[in-house]
Amino acid sequence: MNRAPLGVFDSGIGGLTVARALFERLPHESVIYFGDTARVPYGPKSPDTVRRYAAEILAYLLGRGVKALVSARSPVPLVGVIEPGARAAVAATRSGKIGVIGTAGTIASGAYERAIQALRPDTPVCAQACPLFVPLVEEGWFDHPATELIARQYLEPLQRAGVDVLVLGCTHYPLLKPLLARVLGAGVTLVDSAEETAKAVARAIEQGDLAAPPDAASVHRFVVSDDEPHFRKVGARFLGEKLQIVEVVPLG
Amino acid sequence: MNRAPLGVFDSGIGGLTVARALFERLPHESVIYFGDTARVPYGPKSPDTVRRYAAEILAYLLGRGVKALVSARSPVPLVGVIEPGARAAVAATRSGKIGVIGTAGTIASGAYERAIQALRPDTPVCAQACPLFVPLVEEGWFDHPATELIARQYLEPLQRAGVDVLVLGCTHYPLLKPLLARVLGAGVTLVDSAEETAKAVARAIEQGDLAAPPDAASVHRFVVSDDEPHFRKVGARFLGEKLQIVEVVPLG
Repeated sequence: MNRAPLGVFDSGIGGLTVARALFERLPHESVIYFGDTARVPYGPKSPDTVRRYAAEILAYLLGRGVKALVSARSPVPLVGVIEPGARAAVAATRSGKIGVIGTAGTIASGAYERAIQALRPDTPVCAQACPLFVPLVEEGWFDHPATELIARQYLEPLQRAGVDVLVLGCTHYPLLKPLLARVLGAGVTLVDSAEETAKAVARAIEQGDLAAPPDAASVHRFVVSDDEPHFRKVGARFLGEKLQIVEVVPLG
Repeated sequence: MNRAPLGVFDSGIGGLTVARALFERLPHESVIYFGDTARVPYGPKSPDTVRRYAAEILAYLLGRGVKALVSARSPVPLVGVIEPGARAAVAATRSGKIGVIGTAGTIASGAYERAIQALRPDTPVCAQACPLFVPLVEEGWFDHPATELIARQYLEPLQRAGVDVLVLGCTHYPLLKPLLARVLGAGVTLVDSAEETAKAVARAIEQGDLAAPPDAASVHRFVVSDDEPHFRKVGARFLGEKLQIVEVVPLG
């Protein structure tokens, strides 16, 4: 239950038909509608300008605490990490039995099961929480005998269930890939959510005609809300290289 | 081509594996990574709190001009108007021939064709721009003989193509529904994007356990960036009722 309003945004007045349909269908929901009447129509403006406007309005509505957003235009493509991993798992399995590992929270949420079964109904998904993997990775013990021992115990039920694909359903786990591959053997394909997410981003920027020109010099910036030294130190292990530009922006 | 950065956000450090995969796969792309290290871990926090954090970071990254966003968590469900209309059209057609009408911009973008063909490949889509419909609706001429004359001319190619479903691909068009139904006759199902979007929102808030309690008193607010009197006047026709609370918030 949540009393926050729904946000609706539009370049002008047309979205009021959507607001009206919402009022009728969802009489208990509050709604905040934003019509950008100062800058309507968006049609003749460039995609970059429209994106900028939409981002501004989205940020405004998020600031007003909306719990869901309705818009004819998403300011930017939003890529999650769950769906790309689920898609790769469904594509890779031959036995039809898919394993997923993640934090206790992710596994309890059932997000991967839902995403996998949305793509291929009735696929058996064998999910296993691996709560020690995040602290082991943050400690840098990617290939420690203790990590291997723990991995063997966590993965045993998945092996028994006969999964032939294992989704690494936590962004820390790609660092354990060599160890997990060794424990599971060649018969199990590891799906690296980070890698699949990067592929999905590549597709999204191609579809949106958003790619940087081939001569672009890329800049990689890191912003944290606290404790920059720790982030720099542990982050270099995650990134495989030093973090060049780190800013601290306190929020909240 | 677009030199704006990609935004990546995460509760802490784990998302750096995604950043690393992005750096490798998209070497020309700039990236801005946000790690909420002050508030990590998100796992033990309530969904409302996590949503508030994520919304804040999303707004921050949009303010920094990112062109796409990657995150393990979307702060709020984002519902567009295209996909729900496309889904309803595919479900409703018997002949398999779908018509779409919209503004010149929407039709030129091919967004409905893409959404329909993503759901059912090779579906023939007959798309027709109807540039006079928006000004006719804003004039209030929902059932004027001139509007009917213009509608007959716009719709003739769609009828000739044998479409049995017509997607009203512009939020102004639901106001023309009675006239369009009369012109096309009972053999053509009209898909009202506003209505289908409201259904999609209802599903999204149910799935996200975001519904207001049944005793909630709803509040409907309207925010515009300019010209409140015109918005109030024309808006009442769109909404079928007076707009109670209208605020003016200049942006940009």
